[in-house]
Amino acid sequence: MDYYPAPGRNHLFVPGPTNVPEPVLRAMNRSNEDHRSPAFPKLSKSVIEDVKQLFGTTKATSFIIPTTGTGAWESALTNVLSPGDNIISFLFGQFSLLWIDQMNRLNFNVDVIESEWGAGADLATLSKKLSADYSHSVKAVCIVHNETSTGVTNNLAAVRRVLDESRHPALLLVDGVSSIGALDFHMDKWKVDVALTGSQKALSLPTGLGIVCASPKALEAAKTAKSIRVFFNWADYLKFYKLGSIWPYTPSIQMLYGLRASLDLILKEEGLHNVIARHHRLAEATRKAVQAWGLKICTQKPEWHSDTVTAVVVPPHINSGNVVKIAWKKYNLNLGVGLNKVAGKVFRIGHMGYLNELQLLGALAGVELSLQDVGYPVTLGSGVAAAQAHLQRATPLIASRI
Amino acid sequence: MDYYPAPGRNHLFVPGPTNVPEPVLRAMNRSNEDHRSPAFPKLSKSVIEDVKQLFGTTKATSFIIPTTGTGAWESALTNVLSPGDNIISFLFGQFSLLWIDQMNRLNFNVDVIESEWGAGADLATLSKKLSADYSHSVKAVCIVHNETSTGVTNNLAAVRRVLDESRHPALLLVDGVSSIGALDFHMDKWKVDVALTGSQKALSLPTGLGIVCASPKALEAAKTAKSIRVFFNWADYLKFYKLGSIWPYTPSIQMLYGLRASLDLILKEEGLHNVIARHHRLAEATRKAVQAWGLKICTQKPEWHSDTVTAVVVPPHINSGNVVKIAWKKYNLNLGVGLNKVAGKVFRIGHMGYLNELQLLGALAGVELSLQDVGYPVTLGSGVAAAQAHLQRATPLIASRI
Amino acid sequence: MDYYPAPGRNHLFVPGPTNVPEPVLRAMNRSNEDHRSPAFPKLSKSVIEDVKQLFGTTKATSFIIPTTGTGAWESALTNVLSPGDNIISFLFGQFSLLWIDQMNRLNFNVDVIESEWGAGADLATLSKKLSADYSHSVKAVCIVHNETSTGVTNNLAAVRRVLDESRHPALLLVDGVSSIGALDFHMDKWKVDVALTGSQKALSLPTGLGIVCASPKALEAAKTAKSIRVFFNWADYLKFYKLGSIWPYTPSIQMLYGLRASLDLILKEEGLHNVIARHHRLAEATRKAVQAWGLKICTQKPEWHSDTVTAVVVPPHINSGNVVKIAWKKYNLNLGVGLNKVAGKVFRIGHMGYLNELQLLGALAGVELSLQDVGYPVTLGSGVAAAQAHLQRATPLIASRI
Amino acid sequence: MDYYPAPGRNHLFVPGPTNVPEPVLRAMNRSNEDHRSPAFPKLSKSVIEDVKQLFGTTKATSFIIPTTGTGAWESALTNVLSPGDNIISFLFGQFSLLWIDQMNRLNFNVDVIESEWGAGADLATLSKKLSADYSHSVKAVCIVHNETSTGVTNNLAAVRRVLDESRHPALLLVDGVSSIGALDFHMDKWKVDVALTGSQKALSLPTGLGIVCASPKALEAAKTAKSIRVFFNWADYLKFYKLGSIWPYTPSIQMLYGLRASLDLILKEEGLHNVIARHHRLAEATRKAVQAWGLKICTQKPEWHSDTVTAVVVPPHINSGNVVKIAWKKYNLNLGVGLNKVAGKVFRIGHMGYLNELQLLGALAGVELSLQDVGYPVTLGSGVAAAQAHLQRATPLIASRI
Repeated sequence: MDYYPAPGRNHLFVPGPTNVPEPVLRAMNRSNEDHRSPAFPKLSKSVIEDVKQLFGTTKATSFIIPTTGTGAWESALTNVLSPGDNIISFLFGQFSLLWIDQMNRLNFNVDVIESEWGAGADLATLSKKLSADYSHSVKAVCIVHNETSTGVTNNLAAVRRVLDESRHPALLLVDGVSSIGALDFHMDKWKVDVALTGSQKALSLPTGLGIVCASPKALEAAKTAKSIRVFFNWADYLKFYKLGSIWPYTPSIQMLYGLRASLDLILKEEGLHNVIARHHRLAEATRKAVQAWGLKICTQKPEWHSDTVTAVVVPPHINSGNVVKIAWKKYNLNLGVGLNKVAGKVFRIGHMGYLNELQLLGALAGVELSLQDVGYPVTLGSGVAAAQAHLQRATPLIASRI
Repeated sequence: MDYYPAPGRNHLFVPGPTNVPEPVLRAMNRSNEDHRSPAFPKLSKSVIEDVKQLFGTTKATSFIIPTTGTGAWESALTNVLSPGDNIISFLFGQFSLLWIDQMNRLNFNVDVIESEWGAGADLATLSKKLSADYSHSVKAVCIVHNETSTGVTNNLAAVRRVLDESRHPALLLVDGVSSIGALDFHMDKWKVDVALTGSQKALSLPTGLGIVCASPKALEAAKTAKSIRVFFNWADYLKFYKLGSIWPYTPSIQMLYGLRASLDLILKEEGLHNVIARHHRLAEATRKAVQAWGLKICTQKPEWHSDTVTAVVVPPHINSGNVVKIAWKKYNLNLGVGLNKVAGKVFRIGHMGYLNELQLLGALAGVELSLQDVGYPVTLGSGVAAAQAHLQRATPLIASRI
Repeated sequence: MDYYPAPGRNHLFVPGPTNVPEPVLRAMNRSNEDHRSPAFPKLSKSVIEDVKQLFGTTKATSFIIPTTGTGAWESALTNVLSPGDNIISFLFGQFSLLWIDQMNRLNFNVDVIESEWGAGADLATLSKKLSADYSHSVKAVCIVHNETSTGVTNNLAAVRRVLDESRHPALLLVDGVSSIGALDFHMDKWKVDVALTGSQKALSLPTGLGIVCASPKALEAAKTAKSIRVFFNWADYLKFYKLGSIWPYTPSIQMLYGLRASLDLILKEEGLHNVIARHHRLAEATRKAVQAWGLKICTQKPEWHSDTVTAVVVPPHINSGNVVKIAWKKYNLNLGVGLNKVAGKVFRIGHMGYLNELQLLGALAGVELSLQDVGYPVTLGSGVAAAQAHLQRATPLIASRI
Repeated sequence: MDYYPAPGRNHLFVPGPTNVPEPVLRAMNRSNEDHRSPAFPKLSKSVIEDVKQLFGTTKATSFIIPTTGTGAWESALTNVLSPGDNIISFLFGQFSLLWIDQMNRLNFNVDVIESEWGAGADLATLSKKLSADYSHSVKAVCIVHNETSTGVTNNLAAVRRVLDESRHPALLLVDGVSSIGALDFHMDKWKVDVALTGSQKALSLPTGLGIVCASPKALEAAKTAKSIRVFFNWADYLKFYKLGSIWPYTPSIQMLYGLRASLDLILKEEGLHNVIARHHRLAEATRKAVQAWGLKICTQKPEWHSDTVTAVVVPPHINSGNVVKIAWKKYNLNLGVGLNKVAGKVFRIGHMGYLNELQLLGALAGVELSLQDVGYPVTLGSGVAAAQAHLQRATPLIASRI
């Protein structure tokens, strides 16, 4: 039963939820089982352990919470902070905005460092603020690694440098929702204290798991943090980890088998390094297509280029919402709309998760058609050709087929 | 890939998660789709509307939250109450205990009315307390409808009568996790203010949806409730309901299609009335089997008999955990263990969700074998026979096959 | 979309098609792929090789044909025989009858050795006929290993002995549709020349694969056999085996992945020896139940007891068809009807494929209820108890859970 | 478990098997059920009836046989012809060749009218032969509607005209394997006597169903046809149609539910007329791409253009097999190789079944990359652009989304 059926496959190029691989669908195609039987912890432990590889950590403790990215945010904040705590947070797009909104509503005292939408985090200002904070009143620095609304990836190594140079002990909290599992992420190296993602992004799963990793320092902070929390409380998980039954409340059997399958695809079949390289390759191809169309991307500087989402700026006389609409109505292609400040001005191409070159080229061809349909005179095939030229060079033979 | 494989079907008779019907598995067997496309709200609205039938309400507003029962509890409490609020809550088993623990941790001031495990809520004491509360300082009365750890169902009509007779304006909050969709539930008639359930119980879905219904009075209370909440905040849902895009954050596509299929099975194919009658029939059969084995159930009086779970008390020289263990190790049968105070003393047979007579009889046969295996000299076939005698009379012809 | 929906699982106890395991459903849940790509032969070769273990052969060549058991029969006959060839075939039930009907229609000259329905093959007569056939005009002896209509298993070692003692070179053709993969089968030891089965029986797959093994002697016979055949011609398979592309025409991708999963369950997870022991255990339990009901089985002597299907004879005043009808209409239980000569007189309980003890006990409980419903005064629980007594003793702990 | 895994979706552009739609996978995701219960005929009758729409017939009788296209051929021939019968058959590619090979092996006396590979049926010669056949010794004219190896579609209306003008009573037998359900087909109007297809082509199902329609004249011929047949005998089906139990032997439950879903997609959701128009649109786009690449298609004249498969001729210095190889090894794209006479000279793009515009454009982009990779200097994007130009004009808004 589909509500607006259309022949052929849906071309899902929003920046999440992403395409679910067939092996994951197969793994999830099962009835419930007793999560309290001796069998279930075995699966559970394996995924709790293996997700850490996506975060680049061996030191952190991971929590797989039956929630969404928004819930994972709340888990990150409330477990390490107390109401009234001073935190610094960066604002440069819709998702950093929403996280800040959450921080405010959770009663933290947020010092917002704002940049233009399309720019990355303003680290100079961060440096100034931290250096001036002699009393170390700032408890945490919060940053969205990859801002999904503008296609901006921040340099977390640089953020860590600023913290280190200021010799500031603030916790570093990172939203990696649209980055972890698709972009390079080094929690241990960057000394990130809490990092989080959601299942429906790079992991190519259905929505439903918020995955949070906490450094030893974060776990220490959790012991004294006074924010009220129950559902999101790490302490309950830690208690059940010790008991060996792992889950403080009923988890989703299906999602955990799906996670196992997704981790197998990423870590064993393709290899995380290759997954990240593939995301870069597809993103580069997309950016070359945009250039060939004579359009600009929202991201202001190459250093902030996002390898999971590209926000394309349309000319002033075009409403980007119409591009998204015609793509869906005529080509069964789902693109992301522009949000908030960039509503009507950008549309977004998600290139995250379990995707390959020809899927992307089909979507780029669809974008060209849609642009033309709404009156932007793109040369048909031009973006595809630019993307192809890059992909032909950059795409390796499929490892299993050499 | 199964961790402890065994031939044939798993006999899942824990009181949740329950058996997922094939039509639900089929409905969920799908890739992600764009939850922001025009298609998705159509499905969303249909399930948001139809779940209300399970709650017996036309007046309440429903929220389908990507969380578990524990999260649904938190949603119920934090949206209508403020820290320090006085609430009355009943304690008579593990789940009422855990909810009270949550209430305390959420900083409410809980006046606990305790009964023995196996008894239902002590309404006489409630009556006294409410009558004495001239200032109406009690903001809410909280009750677990069906206590899953002991197999006790409370009489919510009686609870409402006590409130009415005391002319007390306290909100009535009900945990219907192991009741709604399986037992009679009349939110409007009983003037319940917040009722909640989880997807992995009577709905026979995977875990992942906390379903909460709020009366107009509860929604009014939510406007001034001061408990800090973001992820669980109803206001965000109400805002997106108005916008027509329904979801404040990404929902699980698969779970919502699954919910649609489950509601179709319950409301259209079988009929809610028949679903409830089936649960009663299977529960009666189970109780008759227990009696035939010469054992007692944990539930102290028939008025509290639960139609979704039966907690069986084993003789003192038997450890109920061993019954559960051998059932799993030899017969691929999953029973519920005794929790907390009744650990080792009871095992539980869940008979909730998408189940039929012969599935139950197979499980009862398995319980007999397991009892025998652990040294309780049950007459093989005795419980099955008692259950059969009831089922033969009580089971109607399958409606579609007459 | 189900045509006559009923709550809970269907209890499928016909002697085929059988219950499909979840791991098999998962393996089959996939789109098509190119059967001419380099990937597909790898899967194909693995199953072509591994099915031989079910047949007890290392010497034979296996063919996995996209057809049913009826097609597999035709494949067996037409590849080794020429029109007009004399063959001896045994008649003792509906399926042996149908195979003989096919032999006649394929223009072979069939000498039928008939037994009563319920008896096995009359080997004394076979011995006489073969001994008298000095000219070796008989080209083949054909026998149904397990007659599904009466629950009769023939002793193939004894058949081989008769052939050997008569020093007769006739080919031995065996229908193992309801035996291979569930009962002991030793193609090499018994010098069977062609043996065959279908996917929807012991392999617990959907219908669609006819699996045929041919001994070197059979392959030799195939070179000169003059029966016209194209679709069923082994020569085409042998040609494509040599080419390495395996399939003379498009196979079912899904069925072959399903077969792989089924073979993994049987050969790796449970072990063929244990699978056969489980079938014996469940069959014994069933027979004990029938005895407890005061009924007889169709099988005339214990030596012919079938471990995959039990045909139960009802008292003269009962129509067995009504037992089957009420079981389906009231208990969602599918039993096999009596066929042809035994129509109305027997109903059949299939206990073949991926089944376990409690599934069977549930079904036996259902049979008791159905018998009672149609007016046969069985003591409820009596058959279940008899079966339980056997199973408690005979059922080992589940290997993976010890 | 995939044998040669690769990230992202497989791009399946062979001319069968084709991409299976998610709704079909969902419908097939089920255990077995009893095909002899009252439920199954209901489904069976609905599909037996509805497949006729694909064939353009209300007068014919349909047979859904658990076999492949090769089996459907055998069914068509053996049911209406007797050994030694004179038949005329056209040879113009690999599949017409294989059918003729089958005819010879089935002992018919085949008069072959040969054309070059790339040309259609030589109707002038047919006309001469029929006109000269005063005695009406020719019993049947056999033609492959769409030759999958060369991408040639024959004009069946013209064939009928030739038969009519010659006033010749020969039966008209048509292989519609790669046409029916995708191309216009008018069995009644064209007075086709037997037409057939397979499930893995336009119906987008797994392999496993051979679907055959027989005109009243064909059914009449079947009564006296002397070809030996059992498994493929229509008479057995007709007998069980009358009995109401439909199936002479066990059908595939899953395939029939899948067929129901596929027919719903074609007949109800999209509409057969629109399905055919979509195939034409995608085929035109493909041909325009080939032209833009400076290549020729195998089809010699536009009147024979196939709307389900395009065979592309590569320049002499290129081996078309290498194009196919690199497409699979680097881009996860499956194309069809050149068969027999055109091996190494052509590769084939299947554009049949459940496909849409952007899927095709992705594949065409992949063909361009592969051509370049093997040393044919195609301008990247050129074919895509030509296809896009056509598709932009020709593609309607998706009906459900207007």
